[in-house]
Amino acid sequence: MKRITVLLVGVATLVGVVAFMAITSRHTTAQEAAPIFVTKIPAGYRDWKVVSVAHEEGDLNDIRAILGNDVAIKAYRAGKLPFPEGAIVGRIAWSYVPSEENNKTFGRAQSFVAGGPTDFYLQFMVKDSKRYAATGGWGYSSFDKDGKPSPESGMITCFPCHQAVKERDFIFTRYTP
Amino acid sequence: MKRITVLLVGVATLVGVVAFMAITSRHTTAQEAAPIFVTKIPAGYRDWKVVSVAHEEGDLNDIRAILGNDVAIKAYRAGKLPFPEGAIVGRIAWSYVPSEENNKTFGRAQSFVAGGPTDFYLQFMVKDSKRYAATGGWGYSSFDKDGKPSPESGMITCFPCHQAVKERDFIFTRYTP
Repeated sequence: MKRITVLLVGVATLVGVVAFMAITSRHTTAQEAAPIFVTKIPAGYRDWKVVSVAHEEGDLNDIRAILGNDVAIKAYRAGKLPFPEGAIVGRIAWSYVPSEENNKTFGRAQSFVAGGPTDFYLQFMVKDSKRYAATGGWGYSSFDKDGKPSPESGMITCFPCHQAVKERDFIFTRYTP
Repeated sequence: MKRITVLLVGVATLVGVVAFMAITSRHTTAQEAAPIFVTKIPAGYRDWKVVSVAHEEGDLNDIRAILGNDVAIKAYRAGKLPFPEGAIVGRIAWSYVPSEENNKTFGRAQSFVAGGPTDFYLQFMVKDSKRYAATGGWGYSSFDKDGKPSPESGMITCFPCHQAVKERDFIFTRYTP
């Protein structure tokens, strides 16, 4: 039963990706080719306020801070959906490493901290309903530690996955006070 | 060997606690009893910038954001030690919970997010070299979800533990860019 569920999720994701590629393709052949992905790191993101934090195991193996620009934070705190134009939600993903120093102080191995930047160090969702109409009004972006945007082949999975939380305007992370 | 090390750390901590209690006791019997612990939550802390993030297993079982006020962040980024007067380093500790929603999307159990506030929800170190001279120039504080300060019996272990990182001005968390 579990296998079937996993398979179905996989198929559903694949269908989403294919459908999305069709949209992308349609867009890029249009006269005014709209950019689907954001390729510039938003200025000042490291000064943004905290939405929440998380840890991903598995291949990602990171610990992350999810941040929002002022427009996003204001909407989060007001519980306002959809997010207004100009909202940007970002996340920084550091490698997940045990802290020998902290463990020594605690007297047991229990502490995990943020290490260096991961391969998908920075990611942002930028709200611009017209520009990114094909992807739910959000432009997606991902950068490595050198600020190099992730290849488009890795980016086409963003929107299909985020459709799982369409009712929260495609944003997974909840604000934690 | 490991047991001996643990024991030695335990003894060292205990010695620190006892020594610290002696200092506290000396202070409170002085004519001008200086407050050792901070009992007021610093205003606007939820808007502060991110120093880093961490996860503690064991009894704490939390995921946390470490934040700094502008004075602290400026010093962190400049690599300036000791921290200047007025610097405040805070941390918010949320319960560490698996995200069924994220796991469903990822197709595997790998995602852990911030839940509700923990018993030691908020903690702050406030730099005031004169006021908190007895504890390395930092005043320590801890609050539950209702803003109630933790009992002093739980607070006397703060300074002895933080002495492990005296060379970093008693602050464990490193800034992660």
